[in-house]
Amino acid sequence: MSETTIPYKIYLNEHEMPAQWYNVRADMKNKPAPLLNPGTMQPMTLEELSGVFCSELAKQELDDTTAFIDIPAEILKFYKMYRPSPLVRAYCLEEKLQTPAKIYYKFEGNNTSGSHKLNSAIAQAYYAKKQGLKGVTTETGAGQWGTALSMACAYFDLDCKVYMVKVSYEQKPFRREVMRTYGASVTPSPSETTEVGRKILAEYPGTTGSLGCAISEAVEAAVGSEGYRYVLGSVLNQVLLHQSIIGLETKAALDKYNITPDIIIGCAGGGSNLGGLISPFMGEKLRGEKDYRIIAVEPASCPSFTRGRYAYDFCDTGKVCPLAKMYTLGSGFIPSANHAGGLRYHGMSSVLSQLYDDGLMEARSVEQTSVFEAAVQFARTEGILPAPESSHAIRAAIDEAMKCKETGEEKTIVFGLTGTGYFDMVAYEKYNNGEMSDYIPTDEELQPGFDSLPKMN
Amino acid sequence: MSETTIPYKIYLNEHEMPAQWYNVRADMKNKPAPLLNPGTMQPMTLEELSGVFCSELAKQELDDTTAFIDIPAEILKFYKMYRPSPLVRAYCLEEKLQTPAKIYYKFEGNNTSGSHKLNSAIAQAYYAKKQGLKGVTTETGAGQWGTALSMACAYFDLDCKVYMVKVSYEQKPFRREVMRTYGASVTPSPSETTEVGRKILAEYPGTTGSLGCAISEAVEAAVGSEGYRYVLGSVLNQVLLHQSIIGLETKAALDKYNITPDIIIGCAGGGSNLGGLISPFMGEKLRGEKDYRIIAVEPASCPSFTRGRYAYDFCDTGKVCPLAKMYTLGSGFIPSANHAGGLRYHGMSSVLSQLYDDGLMEARSVEQTSVFEAAVQFARTEGILPAPESSHAIRAAIDEAMKCKETGEEKTIVFGLTGTGYFDMVAYEKYNNGEMSDYIPTDEELQPGFDSLPKMN
Repeated sequence: MSETTIPYKIYLNEHEMPAQWYNVRADMKNKPAPLLNPGTMQPMTLEELSGVFCSELAKQELDDTTAFIDIPAEILKFYKMYRPSPLVRAYCLEEKLQTPAKIYYKFEGNNTSGSHKLNSAIAQAYYAKKQGLKGVTTETGAGQWGTALSMACAYFDLDCKVYMVKVSYEQKPFRREVMRTYGASVTPSPSETTEVGRKILAEYPGTTGSLGCAISEAVEAAVGSEGYRYVLGSVLNQVLLHQSIIGLETKAALDKYNITPDIIIGCAGGGSNLGGLISPFMGEKLRGEKDYRIIAVEPASCPSFTRGRYAYDFCDTGKVCPLAKMYTLGSGFIPSANHAGGLRYHGMSSVLSQLYDDGLMEARSVEQTSVFEAAVQFARTEGILPAPESSHAIRAAIDEAMKCKETGEEKTIVFGLTGTGYFDMVAYEKYNNGEMSDYIPTDEELQPGFDSLPKMN
Repeated sequence: MSETTIPYKIYLNEHEMPAQWYNVRADMKNKPAPLLNPGTMQPMTLEELSGVFCSELAKQELDDTTAFIDIPAEILKFYKMYRPSPLVRAYCLEEKLQTPAKIYYKFEGNNTSGSHKLNSAIAQAYYAKKQGLKGVTTETGAGQWGTALSMACAYFDLDCKVYMVKVSYEQKPFRREVMRTYGASVTPSPSETTEVGRKILAEYPGTTGSLGCAISEAVEAAVGSEGYRYVLGSVLNQVLLHQSIIGLETKAALDKYNITPDIIIGCAGGGSNLGGLISPFMGEKLRGEKDYRIIAVEPASCPSFTRGRYAYDFCDTGKVCPLAKMYTLGSGFIPSANHAGGLRYHGMSSVLSQLYDDGLMEARSVEQTSVFEAAVQFARTEGILPAPESSHAIRAAIDEAMKCKETGEEKTIVFGLTGTGYFDMVAYEKYNNGEMSDYIPTDEELQPGFDSLPKMN
């Protein structure tokens, strides 16, 4: 098919849409390490997991052999409301950069929640509803996940309790109101509503909270309430499974026009978007059918892949959650206040950690002023105002495209544009005013985080 | 074609996209009244208009005979970045309402500017660029238009000066930052940068500004600067022409599935969305080919159609702009501080005013708590968080669908969903907290506005 027939945006027709999720673990020779019970340090059983997660989700969490899992009809129906998301050829950006590279991005911000998080939120809400639960609890930091889950719970008429990191609760009142508009209750964390919250407040009276602390509260609230379970928007195997819809659509759209990417790029915080985007491509790579360069991009100020350790670690501050083996900076790591965007979780998906450890993907870290520079350039040429998180991938895509300009190579670059930056204008303002700076932690500054790792490692 | 084959979202393929705008004035027997020169009270000539607007736009403003006008290739190219916008079948809302009505909405919020305003912004920026101008000036209130124009100017590398109503500038810092991110300069209005601004500030030192005042400043800034012209996001004939892309796409998508709407609904402030949406349908009606019920929905607190007078009026506070014949509350009208959303302009498009006066469309006003009730219901069922403006149309669509439920009629309702409400969370918060109230001005309260009408009427 000739170049000129490739539209700006490749949309799939409804009959071309994936009807199954792809579970990349099935094709991994080295499986990701299992979650461990923090009490016994033994692998979590289905029964144990089912006390925290919905039963079907617990099953998905443990299943590392089934390659394709049917997407339930009700989830497919919801997906139709905002999917397929467009795969966009960045013609304008290419022209601006004067690069021979061909750049595509999978845009996941075209739903009201504003990010890819909705793909897993609706799945988790569905299974909760199917199990006859009253509601779910969760935590949110910047608010993308909480927003997505609120939307999903409204759709299925489920109660939704969100523990929002206190500093975000206060600084991002609009995010909070979006969640409330969708019917969720939003509690600033740490709060007096949980034992772990009260304990943390007693110990650190002025604390503005953290993601790890909000996770602890949300888990306690779920386990302690009849008819509730806890849900999480990243890191977990089940989340990557649901997010595989991103990669499957991307691959179907590329295949439709006989396009083979050379490089696939995604930002990486807990790994939900990156894992979803690369899944089917990684599957081909694992099965020896094709090869791709796959690049994870993370903030220099929270460098779990590039400077973290591959070790078992706590997922939350209160240490009530199972332990996961992952690239981690330690649950005691706290990103610098200088850091403006998301992608601030101390660890990384076990699936991605194993793939990275096996040399199947690369990782790089980028500094935030260069990230916002890329974001503004992208906004002005492609018209989409990207989330700071997504802009890490833009930065790397532009860098790769500029390398092509030097070498004259016509590489095809695909990156994940996970969401929009409407609720991140405080950070943009800082950048626009020239008040944003960079920060790379020293080895000494990373040490306390590593010291917090459990002794078993 | 059977009912079940209608997808959730009807997208047009690139070759099905309109390549011409439709100028409804060409089919109107009673043409809209011409703009008048405020000095001579004679119809504005092309030459006079070209001092304020780009020459090609001035031509479009005056052209009431050419039915179809080619969309320039560069605008078509930009449209492809975010168009076609989806025509969505509101299956979830229908199910929630248990109505036999079939509800469709044309969703114009799926671009970063967040609203339909981009359709005309990119056209006006294109003609400015083509004319070799350095830049454009404009005003913005809630910020949708300013955001769209900033994006469009970034694309064509044009300077963009936005006069933002001071109260919005201060209360909506995020909107302001989006514009700055796209490279626009944003000045709170009234300002010291213009003569009219200084005059207003001297007269009313504490004023927080108004749209009519910001228009005066923007016009002065354009006329007084070499290489600049003024652009406006609503009311004008040229804007309705550009916005006809909404209606043309809607009609093409409906025709594709042999769907004929019974009722077409749009919110109405200055008329840009409504005029664009209904244009091709109104054309059929004017040519006697088909009949549709067409409903304009406006706020009860700013009821220009339903309680205004059809008269020549000033378009701006400073009275530097041409006069337009329109349904108006008088340029001296100021909406109550109680009013939370947009749609607060005192007048209405001359095209729509004439069509309404000729009995070719209906109008109704709705109160804001019922508007937000509809907005929240829509958000929770259809997943899109609508702008307060757009929610006026949702209110009327739900009301019509509920009438169908009573009568059992399977009417097809199409409404325009003009944008998203991300930047309107202060209003949502007020509603969520139960602190929003309604306000209908008394005849006495409307009188000062009517008293401000020019004496010529």
